[in-house]
Amino acid sequence: MRSVVDEVIAQVFELCRHDTGGAVADYIPELASADPDRFGICVVTSQGHTYEIGDSTAEFTIQSISKPLTYAMALADRGPDAVAARVDVEPSGEPFNEISLDPITERPRNPMINAGAITMASMVGGRNVEERFERVLSAYSAFAGRRLRLDEQVYRSEARTGYRNRAIGYMLRSFDILGSEPDAALDLYFRQCSIALTCRDLGMMAATLANNGVNPLTRERVLAPALVERTLSVMTTCGMYDAAGAWVAEVGLPAKSGVGGGVLAVLPGQLGIAVFSPRLDAHGNSVRGVQACRELSRLLELHFMHVVRGAHTAIRSSYPVNAAPSRKRRTDTEQATLRMSGQRGRVYELHGDLLFAGAETVVREISGRDETLDALVLDVQRVGDVARVSRRLISDLLDALAETGCQVAVVDPKRLLRAEGVAPTHPSFDDIDLAVQWCEDRVLDLHCAVSRQRPDVDVVDHPMLSRLSPEQADRFLAALEPRVFARGDVIAHRGEPARWLALITSGEVSQLMPMDSGIVRRVVTLSAGMSFGESPLLTGGAVLTDTRADTKVRLMVLPRARFEELSAEDPALRIALLEHVVADAHQLVDTTLGSLTARRLDL
Amino acid sequence: MRSVVDEVIAQVFELCRHDTGGAVADYIPELASADPDRFGICVVTSQGHTYEIGDSTAEFTIQSISKPLTYAMALADRGPDAVAARVDVEPSGEPFNEISLDPITERPRNPMINAGAITMASMVGGRNVEERFERVLSAYSAFAGRRLRLDEQVYRSEARTGYRNRAIGYMLRSFDILGSEPDAALDLYFRQCSIALTCRDLGMMAATLANNGVNPLTRERVLAPALVERTLSVMTTCGMYDAAGAWVAEVGLPAKSGVGGGVLAVLPGQLGIAVFSPRLDAHGNSVRGVQACRELSRLLELHFMHVVRGAHTAIRSSYPVNAAPSRKRRTDTEQATLRMSGQRGRVYELHGDLLFAGAETVVREISGRDETLDALVLDVQRVGDVARVSRRLISDLLDALAETGCQVAVVDPKRLLRAEGVAPTHPSFDDIDLAVQWCEDRVLDLHCAVSRQRPDVDVVDHPMLSRLSPEQADRFLAALEPRVFARGDVIAHRGEPARWLALITSGEVSQLMPMDSGIVRRVVTLSAGMSFGESPLLTGGAVLTDTRADTKVRLMVLPRARFEELSAEDPALRIALLEHVVADAHQLVDTTLGSLTARRLDL
Repeated sequence: MRSVVDEVIAQVFELCRHDTGGAVADYIPELASADPDRFGICVVTSQGHTYEIGDSTAEFTIQSISKPLTYAMALADRGPDAVAARVDVEPSGEPFNEISLDPITERPRNPMINAGAITMASMVGGRNVEERFERVLSAYSAFAGRRLRLDEQVYRSEARTGYRNRAIGYMLRSFDILGSEPDAALDLYFRQCSIALTCRDLGMMAATLANNGVNPLTRERVLAPALVERTLSVMTTCGMYDAAGAWVAEVGLPAKSGVGGGVLAVLPGQLGIAVFSPRLDAHGNSVRGVQACRELSRLLELHFMHVVRGAHTAIRSSYPVNAAPSRKRRTDTEQATLRMSGQRGRVYELHGDLLFAGAETVVREISGRDETLDALVLDVQRVGDVARVSRRLISDLLDALAETGCQVAVVDPKRLLRAEGVAPTHPSFDDIDLAVQWCEDRVLDLHCAVSRQRPDVDVVDHPMLSRLSPEQADRFLAALEPRVFARGDVIAHRGEPARWLALITSGEVSQLMPMDSGIVRRVVTLSAGMSFGESPLLTGGAVLTDTRADTKVRLMVLPRARFEELSAEDPALRIALLEHVVADAHQLVDTTLGSLTARRLDL
Repeated sequence: MRSVVDEVIAQVFELCRHDTGGAVADYIPELASADPDRFGICVVTSQGHTYEIGDSTAEFTIQSISKPLTYAMALADRGPDAVAARVDVEPSGEPFNEISLDPITERPRNPMINAGAITMASMVGGRNVEERFERVLSAYSAFAGRRLRLDEQVYRSEARTGYRNRAIGYMLRSFDILGSEPDAALDLYFRQCSIALTCRDLGMMAATLANNGVNPLTRERVLAPALVERTLSVMTTCGMYDAAGAWVAEVGLPAKSGVGGGVLAVLPGQLGIAVFSPRLDAHGNSVRGVQACRELSRLLELHFMHVVRGAHTAIRSSYPVNAAPSRKRRTDTEQATLRMSGQRGRVYELHGDLLFAGAETVVREISGRDETLDALVLDVQRVGDVARVSRRLISDLLDALAETGCQVAVVDPKRLLRAEGVAPTHPSFDDIDLAVQWCEDRVLDLHCAVSRQRPDVDVVDHPMLSRLSPEQADRFLAALEPRVFARGDVIAHRGEPARWLALITSGEVSQLMPMDSGIVRRVVTLSAGMSFGESPLLTGGAVLTDTRADTKVRLMVLPRARFEELSAEDPALRIALLEHVVADAHQLVDTTLGSLTARRLDL
């Protein structure tokens, strides 16, 4: 099926290809000989998927699109302060090859004009020009995700005829912007401009910038996030030469063009755009490149000031802990306590990315509550990512809650809230159900009237016997056999026929559902005084879940054959057991229906 | 509990308040007399919550912060083309009060310098200067969410001493940028600059721009989204006078300052910032205002090029329709068909905002599938909002799927996918369960071997009787009584004691769970050949759900008293009914556990 995105790109391509305005750069023969009709567009998502049309694999030289990349290298090698001491970041309002510095600061106005770019080339680290060029070529290649090469002919031609750039180099030397002879910086600059690539490469470079500095296909981190931010900022104000205002107003994407005919544009977090078409306008920007970016921005709604609507709350849902019980079966007393005091525990499920505005909504909602809580669960498993500031906001919120006596646990399987090098101060669960169980335990510890020490149950006191007459109970007890399992033992497997009915007299078991993904999902946790295995035994169906011992477990089991014998001897015994199962199921459905009403209902 | 956000703002306030550099504007006595130590900060979220510290309710005049607002009004009144014919949008690199035009275009360089702003004032619609000023004052008031007032003293002083602005006015007249005498435009400009407001007002104005032009508290749309985008773009490149590059690099927020001491900054979609401190730097920007914005941007990570990470897929989960059955109970034959052919239907649950990049991941994933589908459900109930381009991408995807023979339904309770004025071409449900049921029906229509016409069931053939001996069945049948309900009738209510056991012989009923929110959740839908009411009857518990007739329904019911009589006469009958219930429940649990494994597992 042809993608709609392909159609949009084809539409833009068709619209722009008829524009034959502008002229190919002609200051060196290698550029002048470019086929003026070449035209390619690539849109590469920050996940690395490429949409392309036209001459997307034709080679051309990167030229001035190298400037932001080398600027980023200088920032990484020397640090922002050292770089700022040598170059400003103000739009110049002058042509890119002006032989002048800012009259007040006596520095190049920005790193996107030649004077600034040559200065940046002088700041790339390396022992000699060969090593420095190899570092430049490697870095550009890492952006593109494949090894690029130098176009020797273009390089030699640029080096031979670059009088104007040499003039700039000596001007920089005379103002001490360059600390040594300008030749090395100029040579590196000529070489970086002469690196050959395709529109597809340029698209992947743009996608790497869009993907916060990580190449989306190779997964290599090419540039630190703070430097991506800085580089895109300078491209925003200075990238398109002296038409920055109109570019920002009409296209609204940080971008850089080169006289080779390339244009690179970035929508941070989302995608990169590359266009190649050699005919240039009076500013030195590709005519079709500018037009294609404008149309893509318009049709795909990429303008960076474009907002569909305001921020939403990051709270997906919020409910008292008794509204959505954990899968741990509770005794009747515990259930009564949770019905009464369950609103002392509360669950907040978050979603989306937690940038400042999202985290702010969470903090405001939770810290603005009137009721006192004993326990709170913050579930961030559906959160995409968390900004540093949000980690601080959330962490301070949790600390403040703790001071009010409210214990806090997080559900954070991706460790989003864990700051580097800091041990978490709150319990963290991978699974909301365990966190809810923790929250229930906290409420029960504080509010349950009777002791919550779960003692072993003498089998004669087991609730399973409650509907039996003394004689039935005796017969039933006589048929039971003891079983002991160690922690971790699998007691029964999903799919096998029922072997027996089991009464738990000590310890805990969980019934588990293994899933295709390999994850195991807990269905329920049972403890002493509860039972399992009734329904397959009574119906002849298969065992529905794995059953695993969570602790050392003691069971009294009624084997299948003995059960059939007892049933035949005394139908009333069978009725009593069936009624026990149905009553148990009825109560479970009631609890489950109650929890349906709370969890997963978006606010 | 004191909010962490308040603490961050207090931290910034403390950091900046010791800076007493700069000087109060002194070109008119009214500004010169401002208390230089005044200092306030407001951060207003796009939801309208205000965080404030310091002199947030002290009045000052808006001055140049009026420029983007009047620019927006001119755009709205005259259209972007007419405005562009009179003013450029390029950074000027010159002081704001320069008496010059761009030498090439002979237009003011941008609407944020005085020449451009006076031109914009001349383009505000209205029959006379009074009406035009009233429109300006109303618009500014709508941004702030309360009626603002003119500071008459400042206005008179500005009007009396505005020689330089009068010079600019006559220059504009001489170049025909102003079509008539400059007095009216100048008068409106002096008045708009003299509107008095507080830091809190300014913060709400910023939040209105952040909230895409809608005042977050009054909910009034003050400015169209496209004009918000354009206004913020021009503020980005031209808002902070001749320091735009450094501002974008270091603060990264569209902003505007005024010589009254105010600074307004906007993070689109998220929040607005206002700072008031009268001491100005050499550019005319508030010293503390610039510093506070820089610190807030750094601490709260507000830079508009800041990306936590790349875009994610908008697909929350995706599964074959048989992995998560609807709540419609299916016959054994239907269940077998769904087990076999259920992968011919598929559900995609989306989440997040569907901007281009998010929609692209959806389209690429779905259109890139190899298997042919008969039916697909696209669930957008968890999607925040949808860009126009995404609506087109999704709509084209659905059309393309339809061409392959795959029917499509959407779950779209918020009508996000419905373009204005276009009737939806695909079925749309408010509830995923109904959509899944639709999808199952489609698969069953195509793949179920036997007729799916659900005939009435003769009560003697009802499965409830299958475990009974002929004699038991006769006794059971003799005890039944007919009941008929019309569509919409509530047959039983949650919480009431069990009246009878019901066998459905014709029609469909749904068991419903009314929730606190007023929403009613469907638990299960049952049809002829199925039964309900067993478990409360057998256990003596309460009825767990409401039961409602979805069609005309015929039941044969066994009243409670008759059931007890039958049980007493023949325990084996009671056993058979209990076993039927347990087997039924066993099978239901099996199906439910199967569906646990699919739905809601994020990819």
